[in-house]
Amino acid sequence: MALERTNGRDAGAERSPAAVGQQADAAGHRPGVVAAAVYQHGRRLRDIRIEEAGEWRNREGVVIWIGLHEPDQELLRQVQLEFDLNDLAIEDAGKAHQRPKLEIYGEAIFVVARTAHMTGEEIAFGETHLFVGRGYVVSVRHGPSTSYMAVRQRCEASPAALAHGEHYVLYSILDFIVDNYMPVVEAIHGEVEALEDRLLRDRLAKADIEHLYMLRRNLLRLRNAVVPLVDVCRRHEHLELPGMEVAMQPLFRDVTDHVRRVQEDIDALREVLAFTFEASLMIGQSEQTEISRKLASWAAILAVPTAIAGIYGMNFEQMPELRFRYGYFVVLAIIIALCVTLYRFFRRARWL
Amino acid sequence: MALERTNGRDAGAERSPAAVGQQADAAGHRPGVVAAAVYQHGRRLRDIRIEEAGEWRNREGVVIWIGLHEPDQELLRQVQLEFDLNDLAIEDAGKAHQRPKLEIYGEAIFVVARTAHMTGEEIAFGETHLFVGRGYVVSVRHGPSTSYMAVRQRCEASPAALAHGEHYVLYSILDFIVDNYMPVVEAIHGEVEALEDRLLRDRLAKADIEHLYMLRRNLLRLRNAVVPLVDVCRRHEHLELPGMEVAMQPLFRDVTDHVRRVQEDIDALREVLAFTFEASLMIGQSEQTEISRKLASWAAILAVPTAIAGIYGMNFEQMPELRFRYGYFVVLAIIIALCVTLYRFFRRARWL
Amino acid sequence: MALERTNGRDAGAERSPAAVGQQADAAGHRPGVVAAAVYQHGRRLRDIRIEEAGEWRNREGVVIWIGLHEPDQELLRQVQLEFDLNDLAIEDAGKAHQRPKLEIYGEAIFVVARTAHMTGEEIAFGETHLFVGRGYVVSVRHGPSTSYMAVRQRCEASPAALAHGEHYVLYSILDFIVDNYMPVVEAIHGEVEALEDRLLRDRLAKADIEHLYMLRRNLLRLRNAVVPLVDVCRRHEHLELPGMEVAMQPLFRDVTDHVRRVQEDIDALREVLAFTFEASLMIGQSEQTEISRKLASWAAILAVPTAIAGIYGMNFEQMPELRFRYGYFVVLAIIIALCVTLYRFFRRARWL
Amino acid sequence: MALERTNGRDAGAERSPAAVGQQADAAGHRPGVVAAAVYQHGRRLRDIRIEEAGEWRNREGVVIWIGLHEPDQELLRQVQLEFDLNDLAIEDAGKAHQRPKLEIYGEAIFVVARTAHMTGEEIAFGETHLFVGRGYVVSVRHGPSTSYMAVRQRCEASPAALAHGEHYVLYSILDFIVDNYMPVVEAIHGEVEALEDRLLRDRLAKADIEHLYMLRRNLLRLRNAVVPLVDVCRRHEHLELPGMEVAMQPLFRDVTDHVRRVQEDIDALREVLAFTFEASLMIGQSEQTEISRKLASWAAILAVPTAIAGIYGMNFEQMPELRFRYGYFVVLAIIIALCVTLYRFFRRARWL
Amino acid sequence: MALERTNGRDAGAERSPAAVGQQADAAGHRPGVVAAAVYQHGRRLRDIRIEEAGEWRNREGVVIWIGLHEPDQELLRQVQLEFDLNDLAIEDAGKAHQRPKLEIYGEAIFVVARTAHMTGEEIAFGETHLFVGRGYVVSVRHGPSTSYMAVRQRCEASPAALAHGEHYVLYSILDFIVDNYMPVVEAIHGEVEALEDRLLRDRLAKADIEHLYMLRRNLLRLRNAVVPLVDVCRRHEHLELPGMEVAMQPLFRDVTDHVRRVQEDIDALREVLAFTFEASLMIGQSEQTEISRKLASWAAILAVPTAIAGIYGMNFEQMPELRFRYGYFVVLAIIIALCVTLYRFFRRARWL
Repeated sequence: MALERTNGRDAGAERSPAAVGQQADAAGHRPGVVAAAVYQHGRRLRDIRIEEAGEWRNREGVVIWIGLHEPDQELLRQVQLEFDLNDLAIEDAGKAHQRPKLEIYGEAIFVVARTAHMTGEEIAFGETHLFVGRGYVVSVRHGPSTSYMAVRQRCEASPAALAHGEHYVLYSILDFIVDNYMPVVEAIHGEVEALEDRLLRDRLAKADIEHLYMLRRNLLRLRNAVVPLVDVCRRHEHLELPGMEVAMQPLFRDVTDHVRRVQEDIDALREVLAFTFEASLMIGQSEQTEISRKLASWAAILAVPTAIAGIYGMNFEQMPELRFRYGYFVVLAIIIALCVTLYRFFRRARWL
Repeated sequence: MALERTNGRDAGAERSPAAVGQQADAAGHRPGVVAAAVYQHGRRLRDIRIEEAGEWRNREGVVIWIGLHEPDQELLRQVQLEFDLNDLAIEDAGKAHQRPKLEIYGEAIFVVARTAHMTGEEIAFGETHLFVGRGYVVSVRHGPSTSYMAVRQRCEASPAALAHGEHYVLYSILDFIVDNYMPVVEAIHGEVEALEDRLLRDRLAKADIEHLYMLRRNLLRLRNAVVPLVDVCRRHEHLELPGMEVAMQPLFRDVTDHVRRVQEDIDALREVLAFTFEASLMIGQSEQTEISRKLASWAAILAVPTAIAGIYGMNFEQMPELRFRYGYFVVLAIIIALCVTLYRFFRRARWL
Repeated sequence: MALERTNGRDAGAERSPAAVGQQADAAGHRPGVVAAAVYQHGRRLRDIRIEEAGEWRNREGVVIWIGLHEPDQELLRQVQLEFDLNDLAIEDAGKAHQRPKLEIYGEAIFVVARTAHMTGEEIAFGETHLFVGRGYVVSVRHGPSTSYMAVRQRCEASPAALAHGEHYVLYSILDFIVDNYMPVVEAIHGEVEALEDRLLRDRLAKADIEHLYMLRRNLLRLRNAVVPLVDVCRRHEHLELPGMEVAMQPLFRDVTDHVRRVQEDIDALREVLAFTFEASLMIGQSEQTEISRKLASWAAILAVPTAIAGIYGMNFEQMPELRFRYGYFVVLAIIIALCVTLYRFFRRARWL
Repeated sequence: MALERTNGRDAGAERSPAAVGQQADAAGHRPGVVAAAVYQHGRRLRDIRIEEAGEWRNREGVVIWIGLHEPDQELLRQVQLEFDLNDLAIEDAGKAHQRPKLEIYGEAIFVVARTAHMTGEEIAFGETHLFVGRGYVVSVRHGPSTSYMAVRQRCEASPAALAHGEHYVLYSILDFIVDNYMPVVEAIHGEVEALEDRLLRDRLAKADIEHLYMLRRNLLRLRNAVVPLVDVCRRHEHLELPGMEVAMQPLFRDVTDHVRRVQEDIDALREVLAFTFEASLMIGQSEQTEISRKLASWAAILAVPTAIAGIYGMNFEQMPELRFRYGYFVVLAIIIALCVTLYRFFRRARWL
Repeated sequence: MALERTNGRDAGAERSPAAVGQQADAAGHRPGVVAAAVYQHGRRLRDIRIEEAGEWRNREGVVIWIGLHEPDQELLRQVQLEFDLNDLAIEDAGKAHQRPKLEIYGEAIFVVARTAHMTGEEIAFGETHLFVGRGYVVSVRHGPSTSYMAVRQRCEASPAALAHGEHYVLYSILDFIVDNYMPVVEAIHGEVEALEDRLLRDRLAKADIEHLYMLRRNLLRLRNAVVPLVDVCRRHEHLELPGMEVAMQPLFRDVTDHVRRVQEDIDALREVLAFTFEASLMIGQSEQTEISRKLASWAAILAVPTAIAGIYGMNFEQMPELRFRYGYFVVLAIIIALCVTLYRFFRRARWL
């Protein structure tokens, strides 16, 4: 138990999780195995080695729960042997970048889900594959996903619920995955609101536009992770799966509901960002117009002294005004008067 | 009764409703309980305490109607005990921010609806959760939603209708919620029309663009509140729920129809605001072009005196024109003539 | 009969139709009642008062056809009494602004349709509610909709068809409503083409942009009136209604087809206006670029005399060129040569 | 036969096809009748007059194939009499501008299709109405559609196929109509590619924008012609029609497939034109920015001599530089040096 | 075998594949035939000529697998004869540019798929038609598609799987086609990311906009190739086809899953490119505004010396300042002070 927790904590905290599995393991755990235990009537009996799984599997009221993290081919093959898993599913489980989906292979189901959580400012996307069949659950994590030790502890804390068997474990993991989307959506939500404030207060700087762009990309990616999960959960809810008890239905319905809520939030944020784009175009255009008006106004005002002074700077011999005693001052006064008049005119037309 | 009404009025009027539930209550009402009464054959028998609900529940022709406002966990647990409510639904009811939905748990249904009403210039969004089962209705309000005392009074005023039981109460509350959307949609409608007028008369100032943006956000939020309700009402209308009488069907169909009407209005307003955005872009662009044309025209006109005066301002010793007797006046005349010609030209080309 | 026709004509022609119903009526017609007659085997038997409707209603081969225009509550209540109409439908019929829909209440159906016709340059939107049951049709018009006297005359002219009963009357009215959409769509079509011509010949002035905006709004409103009618007609066509004869099916299919045709036209016009918006943006941008190029070209050409004249306008004592005999003429020639060269250059680059 | 072919060729080639039908006809053909013949077991028996159709109609293995072009009401009435056609369908067939559709009237079906072909640079849209029932096919062409003589000849060339009866004729005509869409789509395709080339090589001139606009309108119109035909063909394919043989199924499936292919091509072209619009906006904006940069750069460079020369053009008595021996040359050198430096600076910043 | 491989390699590597089929063939292979072999119980028995196919076809456990590349009409006719293929399918197979589809002709199915692979920087689109029936698979490649020799070798390497018969061969080919989409999508993905980097670091040059445009076109084309394949695979997966074994279902489900994954990636890339377009508009607009501000600022700063110097360049006789001893220096100082003040002002307003 102590070791298992350590493993789990490591796997969740580190960014290079491959290192985790390669440690030798005094308790007989292999690299890639985060935890492997047998539960009977909801209570943990003992930790087992992968090789023992087959013998435990068909005993009455027993559930084997194995957690793997980026297992190598050999380990996967052994898991396959113990639980008679389907070739194609095992092949999929060996590599990341699957579509979220639920597939039924005879008595067993194979679930792929994409996980997401915040690591500082960044969203870390991971992938979890789940094999669920009579008497066993095997979870296979790829990439920087959170460890399921927290789920295991919570399940062990309520043996009555865990006694429902493998589908309860599946529910717990799916619920945990969906719950983990929430803080990600909230983080994006916060950033969208900050962007909105900046847009409406001032205007978007280039860094903001870049930020807006990255938010849209992240929401798209998150949406692609979440949307197929709606169907996965719905099929659980509608009891289309082998071995599902009616008693589990409300639980899966609850997960479906949470996924839908996440999806709705994502869609709303996507639409808000589209509004932001459009508002930014409008504000930018309005600003551009304002600058043009100011530029035109000042150009007109400053053209006055230039034009008049140019004329009296000509070198004609016969320019009577040049000899007027107060000619210079009159011209200066005219220039100033014209400039002030123009300034007032533009002011009144709201160009300045 | 007197107290109950006061509570109700308070809860509806105040912005910090948490304060309401914490008052001690001489009549034995707990904080968080807005009203709790027993009705038989459509007539109010008496007010009850939550603890008495269980005993009243299964009597012939009796409906218990309890109204809660932001109840604490303990109160919710007791309500759950009295009516055997589902764990997951109670967990949901304890916190706001649920998706509007209808869920069936055995003989009971659980409805989540989002409410909206105007408080001055602002839209106040709230949430109501409803537990409906044989012989009882429990409403749980979160956030600044309007109190349902008005609904209760209206129901009590028509005992024949109320005698239909818990589904009539549910209908009355849903109808009230949907009716309350209408003034919100109308307020937005008025603002959209004011914005349109401003756009077509002049152009959108930055404050208008901000306003347009906020209207779009509010409509999005309102839409997310209203759209899932269509499905909630439709399921009522199609009698998919336990304990629904055929006689109630037209009533629920009427609510469905109102929700659809609200949805249609929201969608039309959303589309109008998209048109407004596009028209604003076009007007802005057309304005920008006009300014550029004016700027270019005046720049050309004013370049004439500058260029000519510059030439006669050169200090060459041999510039015959400078010695012509009327040279200065001729040049002045040429400058004026050129400027007037240019001005007319631009005028005719509609650039000025 | 004479009076009835007058009433009908008035109601259709005037803009304030409320005035119509308030006239006293020598023939015993009430205000609000446009026409009320009994037909047997397709032939008009006699005009009746509303109070007589109930007794005529169940006779063999009889159809009562009542036309109301903005009736008051009392009149509606009496109609309800005579034909046992549903409370909710009567409540709806008392006020305008319903969604187009078809609802079945037991043996009776209730249809809401939005009407549209041109009054000069403007589109006038109205609303018609229809109650249809065994042996009767009641039409209730709200707002500036066209009178159905023309429909009544056409029906009376073909007794064989009218002998099919109330559903034939319903068909005739729906067909009339849908036919009336056509000129509205054609009027908008004409305006869209005029706008297109203006856009492609020149560019859109601000008044055109406003016009474009109003066309989009009107099309949206028309679309919201027409689209729900597709479903209303389709349900007729598919015989989902009480009392529908198979013989009527092709007639309703024909109406469905016309509604779909109107909808297709509206959608095409909406798309064309979206293209117009985009083409206008492109033309505006292209125009803006052209102006900028012209402005830049002329600024460059006019900068030449200004810069050179400025240099020879300096007052240095030692400026050898100033004393050259033909210095002035050479400089003038250089200025002109440079300007011509620049002009040609910009000309060739298609900037001028 | 000779005459028939001539008629057919004329009708296809001319732009004012109404002229065709009005010629007197030595062979007893009426104006409006392009061809009318009886086939037995796939072989042409003889040409008939419309009035004879009724007697031939019910003989074993006989198909009557009549081709009309813009028939007058009288002719249509006679055709209706001979084949017991439905009133509503005949009414529709008398006027153009129907929606493409397939309707079943008892044992007969009525098909409306819109045709399109290139006449030089222009797309000519026409309409064809088809009545198909046991033992007959009547085609009614409106507007500038291609004659079906080619179809008739091809059918007569393969009697074994034609022996399948009226549905084979229907198939042949639909196949011909759909095949005729292809060159239209290809013509538009060519124009879109030419536009693309122009856009990416240079930029869109105003004539190109107009062209782009017209292409979008034409594609919209073509799409509205083609899309409803998918459903028409699909219903044939799924044997939902009276008198369809299973053996015809693959043929109609083939037509469905071609219609879908045309639709896919149209949709792809529409999307490409939307991309073109967006790319044009981007290119236009980028060009505008470039011009602004050039304008700003040259304005800055030319401001240097203007400002410096202006200063040394002042008439102060005490300006020591003016008396320096090489003052003028130094200032000239400074001006040139500053201009070159600025030029290089803007060059390096990619503004020039 | 040796020859076959050579043929295969040639056909895949060359850009003008028509050349391949025209070589004479010592082993009796015709031009256009890439390979033709008989398999029994998953093992290759021998190569055959097309003419022998018919006799082998109905033997127990035998599968004939023929690979054609742009066959001529005669060859196709012979293949049709040997396997009783449908006329319409053979007609389709003779020409490229079919829609991807699956059609059932009695006992045989006909599949059309579009292939795509990278040849250097370009995407090469091809087409493959497959005839699959009891005991045979015929593949017909058009255009620059990759040869299926690799598929054949892989199948021959696992006889147990190949023993499942023709549907296993079909699966292998479809799987290969879908796998080949992946590198194309990844290549586009890489280019999109490069474009993004350039956009966010600097801005899009005209070449980038052209690139963006071509990427959007390619994605559209790829999407049109991939999307109809989802339906083709789904129908396999759902056992809607003649002769499909249940054992093959998971394999086809796996292909479906891969196609969906490709489709999801394409849709995500399309959306990212739409974001790129919008971000580019925003960045372009923001840049334009910045340039306008800079231009306006510098114009204002440089207008100061021009205006002041112009005034003191006037030739009035009475201009007292001109005679002040330090007049020139004071004016110079004022000019510099004003310029510096303006510069600081614009700096603070973030215009410079």
